[in-house]
Amino acid sequence: MNTSANSAPPSPVLITSGDVTGIGPEIIVRLFAEAQTSDLQGRPDLRGVVVLGDLPVLRRAAQLVRQRPDVPAVVLARIEAVEDVWDVPAGVLPVLDTGRGPVGLGSLPWGRVDARAGQAAAAWLREAVELAMAGRAVAIVTAPLHKEALSAAGESYPGHTEMLAAESGRHGQPADVRMMLANDELKTVLVTVHCSLREAIDRVTFDAVLSTLRITHQSARMWGLERPRLAVAGLNPHAGEGGLFGREEVDIIAPAVAAARSEGIDALGPFAPDTVFMRARRGEFDVVVAQYHDQGLIPVKYLGVEHGVNVTLGLPFVRTSPDHGTAFEIAGQGVADASSLRAALSLARRLVAGRG
Amino acid sequence: MNTSANSAPPSPVLITSGDVTGIGPEIIVRLFAEAQTSDLQGRPDLRGVVVLGDLPVLRRAAQLVRQRPDVPAVVLARIEAVEDVWDVPAGVLPVLDTGRGPVGLGSLPWGRVDARAGQAAAAWLREAVELAMAGRAVAIVTAPLHKEALSAAGESYPGHTEMLAAESGRHGQPADVRMMLANDELKTVLVTVHCSLREAIDRVTFDAVLSTLRITHQSARMWGLERPRLAVAGLNPHAGEGGLFGREEVDIIAPAVAAARSEGIDALGPFAPDTVFMRARRGEFDVVVAQYHDQGLIPVKYLGVEHGVNVTLGLPFVRTSPDHGTAFEIAGQGVADASSLRAALSLARRLVAGRG
Repeated sequence: MNTSANSAPPSPVLITSGDVTGIGPEIIVRLFAEAQTSDLQGRPDLRGVVVLGDLPVLRRAAQLVRQRPDVPAVVLARIEAVEDVWDVPAGVLPVLDTGRGPVGLGSLPWGRVDARAGQAAAAWLREAVELAMAGRAVAIVTAPLHKEALSAAGESYPGHTEMLAAESGRHGQPADVRMMLANDELKTVLVTVHCSLREAIDRVTFDAVLSTLRITHQSARMWGLERPRLAVAGLNPHAGEGGLFGREEVDIIAPAVAAARSEGIDALGPFAPDTVFMRARRGEFDVVVAQYHDQGLIPVKYLGVEHGVNVTLGLPFVRTSPDHGTAFEIAGQGVADASSLRAALSLARRLVAGRG
Repeated sequence: MNTSANSAPPSPVLITSGDVTGIGPEIIVRLFAEAQTSDLQGRPDLRGVVVLGDLPVLRRAAQLVRQRPDVPAVVLARIEAVEDVWDVPAGVLPVLDTGRGPVGLGSLPWGRVDARAGQAAAAWLREAVELAMAGRAVAIVTAPLHKEALSAAGESYPGHTEMLAAESGRHGQPADVRMMLANDELKTVLVTVHCSLREAIDRVTFDAVLSTLRITHQSARMWGLERPRLAVAGLNPHAGEGGLFGREEVDIIAPAVAAARSEGIDALGPFAPDTVFMRARRGEFDVVVAQYHDQGLIPVKYLGVEHGVNVTLGLPFVRTSPDHGTAFEIAGQGVADASSLRAALSLARRLVAGRG
């Protein structure tokens, strides 16, 4: 029985559960619970959404979330294959639990680093990549994982982004990926990410800036922007002020911008970092390419982390995630806010549909 | 005749004209013009405000601003000494023109680097410091100057802040100063300022962080905060994540925070740079100590440069300035916005009055 065939998206959207001792399972259940109470306009489109995770874990999360009188109960349905999602009635949370996670996850203590949780998070992420690479899903939304748990499970990735790049590489498409942070008013793509600031400066090379511009341009075109206007932030104060405060703009960034322009990319800059984000917010640019982690993340998070979405560019599928971590300190209390997960799902939908 | 003796501030507030080929003179005149039309609540307190500048320059600016039908005319009055300001009727712009600037300033072309403009800007700033050091003024608000014009005039300072520190040093009080950027919702003080990002990292030392905390604490107490809560931003992503992304937090910043706490300063951190400003905006901290220029300036400017005010901490007087430059590209058109200058004057008043 396929009751929603006419309005079904072409392929499912996956949500991975992340670290089960963090807030991931809670916010996933809450996302489904709140969808029942939201007005039509604010209601997230949950058709075709499949959760990759552990049934006992999600049951525990559902009980937790249900404790609050204002949150309706959520019914879970275990499915055997992602395509079975179309048989699940509206309002029911479809769980693809293929038993890849270790047993006993549902009784792990909240908010503690645990190798089993890391192992499960990695397994669900690998499974999601396999499904997306096989064309059985169009987008992956990832609930937060914990780096230390991942490390305890023998995984050496500093984060989701690096692991996704490696995993899609294993499937024959080596990915050169970039991290984008986005909210309703600003999109920023990072040239360098998780390393010390000193090392980030060393990693700002002609190739790194140019390839970031290429990846951003191609991604933005996929989101429906015909000629995306990409602003490039400088590295130094005042974008180096003509070499007075550092030469990276003159020697590296400006040549990379010029090379991108010669390829038909509408790249502009380098601009003074302290005002380029404000200018983009006001509509002057579509995306800002930032040189290092905090340069790009400070403005996106300034108005509130609950609105921020993390997007990985350069993968052969759309991947978004909430812009927060496992929040161990509040995990298991049923108070975690699902806003950023909802924003991540909503943005994934928009990007897939070419309405970015 | 002193008509406002009862309500007069104890001592005048000075506005220096800055680079006369930029927007400085325009926004000064506009500040006085708009004060005539604002409602009582939005009206800046211009009592005791003295402009240091060149009479022909300000006359030219007054004609320019007057061209707009919605802006009332401004009458200028030349005064011989700052104390004469109390004899100037309300609504009249008092100009202390002691002839220190070169002649012919009033006919310089708009928006071009000129050594004479740099020479005049430096002269007015020196005069303002002399007056403040002599106790004849309580605060200096500086209209923007142009570094290249300053340099063409033989001055080697990278900006106002450095020049103010040196000048007050010449008067017997060597100043260890810090730059603060502030708007209505965020105050951020910079450990390092005008240098390359690479050099900024080298300049983040135990002494630099600790002295910034001391200066910030003392300043905030002068503004009326009894026990200011000072958040310290890390240098690296995630504040180094325990040494994984750089060791400056472990080796330098945390020990400096501990040392400050042992002196009774309510210093907290180091915190992840990408969220500490958002947290301060929400009221968790009074001031954020940022490690480098763009870390602190990106969040302050994000919501709009017209609200930002630059404050120099560590001087023996209050000094504020608008958070924008000479805007050569629009100078002479009469369109420049006086909002940031008005905010700078208003903040100077608040800080002097202990209402920071």
